[in-house]
Amino acid sequence: MPTLDPGIGEKFSRRTQRAINHDGTFNVRRRGGPHQHDPYQWLITMPWWPFIGIVVVFFTVLNVGFALAYIALGLDDLPGVAAPHGWWQDFLSALFFSIQTFTSVGYGHVYPGSNGSGFLSSVEALVGVLTFALATGLLYGRFSRPTARILFSRTALISRRADGTPCLQFRIANLRNSILIDLQARVILKTVDEATLDQRYDLLPLERSAISFFPLTWTLVHDITPESPLYELQAEDYARLGIEVIVQLKGYDDTFAQDVHARNSYTHDEIEWHRRFIRAYEVGDDGIAVVNLDQVHDTEALR
Amino acid sequence: MPTLDPGIGEKFSRRTQRAINHDGTFNVRRRGGPHQHDPYQWLITMPWWPFIGIVVVFFTVLNVGFALAYIALGLDDLPGVAAPHGWWQDFLSALFFSIQTFTSVGYGHVYPGSNGSGFLSSVEALVGVLTFALATGLLYGRFSRPTARILFSRTALISRRADGTPCLQFRIANLRNSILIDLQARVILKTVDEATLDQRYDLLPLERSAISFFPLTWTLVHDITPESPLYELQAEDYARLGIEVIVQLKGYDDTFAQDVHARNSYTHDEIEWHRRFIRAYEVGDDGIAVVNLDQVHDTEALR
Amino acid sequence: MPTLDPGIGEKFSRRTQRAINHDGTFNVRRRGGPHQHDPYQWLITMPWWPFIGIVVVFFTVLNVGFALAYIALGLDDLPGVAAPHGWWQDFLSALFFSIQTFTSVGYGHVYPGSNGSGFLSSVEALVGVLTFALATGLLYGRFSRPTARILFSRTALISRRADGTPCLQFRIANLRNSILIDLQARVILKTVDEATLDQRYDLLPLERSAISFFPLTWTLVHDITPESPLYELQAEDYARLGIEVIVQLKGYDDTFAQDVHARNSYTHDEIEWHRRFIRAYEVGDDGIAVVNLDQVHDTEALR
Amino acid sequence: MPTLDPGIGEKFSRRTQRAINHDGTFNVRRRGGPHQHDPYQWLITMPWWPFIGIVVVFFTVLNVGFALAYIALGLDDLPGVAAPHGWWQDFLSALFFSIQTFTSVGYGHVYPGSNGSGFLSSVEALVGVLTFALATGLLYGRFSRPTARILFSRTALISRRADGTPCLQFRIANLRNSILIDLQARVILKTVDEATLDQRYDLLPLERSAISFFPLTWTLVHDITPESPLYELQAEDYARLGIEVIVQLKGYDDTFAQDVHARNSYTHDEIEWHRRFIRAYEVGDDGIAVVNLDQVHDTEALR
Repeated sequence: MPTLDPGIGEKFSRRTQRAINHDGTFNVRRRGGPHQHDPYQWLITMPWWPFIGIVVVFFTVLNVGFALAYIALGLDDLPGVAAPHGWWQDFLSALFFSIQTFTSVGYGHVYPGSNGSGFLSSVEALVGVLTFALATGLLYGRFSRPTARILFSRTALISRRADGTPCLQFRIANLRNSILIDLQARVILKTVDEATLDQRYDLLPLERSAISFFPLTWTLVHDITPESPLYELQAEDYARLGIEVIVQLKGYDDTFAQDVHARNSYTHDEIEWHRRFIRAYEVGDDGIAVVNLDQVHDTEALR
Repeated sequence: MPTLDPGIGEKFSRRTQRAINHDGTFNVRRRGGPHQHDPYQWLITMPWWPFIGIVVVFFTVLNVGFALAYIALGLDDLPGVAAPHGWWQDFLSALFFSIQTFTSVGYGHVYPGSNGSGFLSSVEALVGVLTFALATGLLYGRFSRPTARILFSRTALISRRADGTPCLQFRIANLRNSILIDLQARVILKTVDEATLDQRYDLLPLERSAISFFPLTWTLVHDITPESPLYELQAEDYARLGIEVIVQLKGYDDTFAQDVHARNSYTHDEIEWHRRFIRAYEVGDDGIAVVNLDQVHDTEALR
Repeated sequence: MPTLDPGIGEKFSRRTQRAINHDGTFNVRRRGGPHQHDPYQWLITMPWWPFIGIVVVFFTVLNVGFALAYIALGLDDLPGVAAPHGWWQDFLSALFFSIQTFTSVGYGHVYPGSNGSGFLSSVEALVGVLTFALATGLLYGRFSRPTARILFSRTALISRRADGTPCLQFRIANLRNSILIDLQARVILKTVDEATLDQRYDLLPLERSAISFFPLTWTLVHDITPESPLYELQAEDYARLGIEVIVQLKGYDDTFAQDVHARNSYTHDEIEWHRRFIRAYEVGDDGIAVVNLDQVHDTEALR
Repeated sequence: MPTLDPGIGEKFSRRTQRAINHDGTFNVRRRGGPHQHDPYQWLITMPWWPFIGIVVVFFTVLNVGFALAYIALGLDDLPGVAAPHGWWQDFLSALFFSIQTFTSVGYGHVYPGSNGSGFLSSVEALVGVLTFALATGLLYGRFSRPTARILFSRTALISRRADGTPCLQFRIANLRNSILIDLQARVILKTVDEATLDQRYDLLPLERSAISFFPLTWTLVHDITPESPLYELQAEDYARLGIEVIVQLKGYDDTFAQDVHARNSYTHDEIEWHRRFIRAYEVGDDGIAVVNLDQVHDTEALR
């Protein structure tokens, strides 16, 4: 059966921080190992501003390089270059010619007038076109990455069902204006043994672990029955045991044709006791249901 | 077990409209929530005409901007500009030069004749090439989105099997000239409790819930046995209970290598009683079966 | 359980040809139905030569159109056009200028010398760049389509296992130099009732219906036990019943990171009796196994 | 049940080398078969340096071809060509003009001055733009291929559990700085019959065959119970039987949104006896776990 346990138990010398952050990333660092180059993946997952910066820097460095090469050849090889010739003006002229070649603009007021500059500008033209082919692929790679936008309630609740059964609940909504289908959830409880600091993982069965459609909100419920690892635990136990409730979601976004994965966790101080969720949707006069995403976190005390 | 129920029951203050429209979209609006930007998804899912409009506007605004920048620099920096110089002619000349740079055409009869215009045109050339790299990605993103084209019969039927068992039926066909394989169907009945307005969801088991190949038509059949939620319900019950039969299909289009998802629903007034489907395919003299898609909706009264 | 039956039985007025051709396509035509446009899919699935033809024609038609527009504007608006001016030479000059603009080459010996030609060439430059953005997407769409290359033995065999059990066998090999993993097979028997011409579909269970790795060959075996629909049928029964053995394969090509689907069928005259497959691989002196793809079809008589 | 057996047993005339190499490829060669062209797949899977070489060669050959065509037309058709005219200088001039057309740079100091060169340069412009559209697709195809980077321990161990049960173990870690989820493993034992040289495949059940998250390391454990094919085998038996432990992993890389497949095997001389793995992760003062990838292979003797 799938488990969170990544090895034969998990033995640590200290208590760890939360395993999963609210953005779904893991609190784990790596060290060592063989060289690992994934330049493409690095380029398409980095935030936008550094990416644009890298593109501009790369473009500039390449063109400065070619500009210096044209200068080395001698600017007599580029008829039409602006006068007067000083080293700074020459550099700018060579740089502009380089950029006009690299980007295939090729005005022609400055042109390669020797075999040397003809060859160098031919090489630069090829490099330029291939560079922009590469940029096209990178841009598309960046854009087409799946982006799950699941909103989790800020807190999880220890609540009570109509029949009195205590239960652990949290709520999710789809932030995007799209249809999520076949959404499946798995919830795992992580506890820490106070003596050995061993970490233990238990599956928390849900009232329903999957829904066909997800247009409104979904409240995931784990009944705290005698079989539940949470049975008869009090709030102070949650803190003492370093409890972390780990959620894994998987579905399919049918509007954007993407798989959706999302993770989140609730540490003991993010669990509220004896509260329940207030309904976050209503029906307008026209009979169409409206979800109010701001209300996903709203709870009220149990009476 | 997968269910349509998006929460602990579903409680509304009014009757809602149908949950699913005939094009598969949901009758749900969203409100509030954190800022949610998905510009790429918005651009690739919008209809074609607005998209082309946005491209043209974006192109125009950028080039007008650069044109104004060239004018601010002074058109003496762009030798070759047409005479006489008036503000409108100057603007047009600058605009044309801008477009010729942005699109990398670069005729050269007008060219950057100063460091200022050389720098500005270099920036514009880079912006232009990156913009078209982006457009390439957007066009491909738009084209490669999966498009399911499942034709549902306009009505569902309450019919009778050969052995007398009543059954609920509807029929589907593949509109595209492609092979759908491993098509799976799930049918869910939504009813509304008259007193509480609670909505209830029940799975309607199908005679067959999946087929290997889908070249012709497929009539999905739910036998109304004593276990069925529809057992012994009459037409007026269907209206009173606000019945909606929700269909979810999932398959793989092997010709176009795309996953296929489709949804539809039949409200009580889209269900016909005591009719059956007329066969919508025939075999020609050459022994090849022909599906007539216009006949997918055709029914006849039961005798 | 998945079935081939596309409806409540399948009733035909005549015997049909084989359901599945050797290239995996279905023998089904479509007629009628709402307008169904899938230009992108049509463009990426058509054979190469028609596609290239369409590209050339589209390019030519667009440029001829723009050329005629330049002529309508008047070639005085395009300084540098070649002399002498006759209607044919003018057309060629306008056409060349159009192409130089459309492809962003923009030599500049001919250039737009009026606002009218400036505007028209700007429009053409934008159209040209977007057209090639579109072409890039189409080319990539054509290339990245999954291509399953499964070689099926030309014939299926009625053979005998070591313990005397009769069995139906056929053999497959991976034509591509790639690793197929998790290959699953489903075999369905289609028979035709002589009286009613109803078509019936039965699953033929396989000795093994899936293999982890598929580097060599795989012989799929259906044991003809008393439970098998083929039990005690003779060759003449196969013909009389219009038997067709339909094969559906699904797997994952790990070298090219593509899903693989393949279909084939064996009609009664493609089934050989009392033969068995000759092994199609051997081990070289270096201990490396070699598959000989030409031998996949090779059979010998049972002794 | 999925099996490694690719046919009815596997009969060889000699012992084979290992079936799976450490990089996951199979030790199998292919021969014969119908012509199999997959130029796109070949281009996107080949290593980078040969690919770049092919691009440069293709570009050069095409442009040399067009250059010779311009020369055949006569360089008088290309006004602006450099003087003096000798066959080598003419060739270079034609080549540079060809490249400037092919890459859409189009300076214009040399330009097509006849209908013949106008037509030829138009064809070349179209070919050039389509070639770079193709290059864009190839570059993106190369970059977007999934790359699994699973680090396997160099050796597998015959170890002992706390309760004394012997077990076969090996360890894996994720080399990439990404989150692998839903990782599933299958381990198959290959043995060779000494007399017949038949190869036999048995599934080795794992203590856990799947984990939800894979941020740290995962030690896969097969308990050598009386039901295990390895029960009571000694080291010399492993060699005599030509044992090979074949591992197949499948998961989803949620950071890079790619499916992950990995394969490896351990031959008898890669299995160490009576050792166990040393833990390869620790917790820093800040409570964040750190994986040390260099320690994944580290083992110590059992006491």
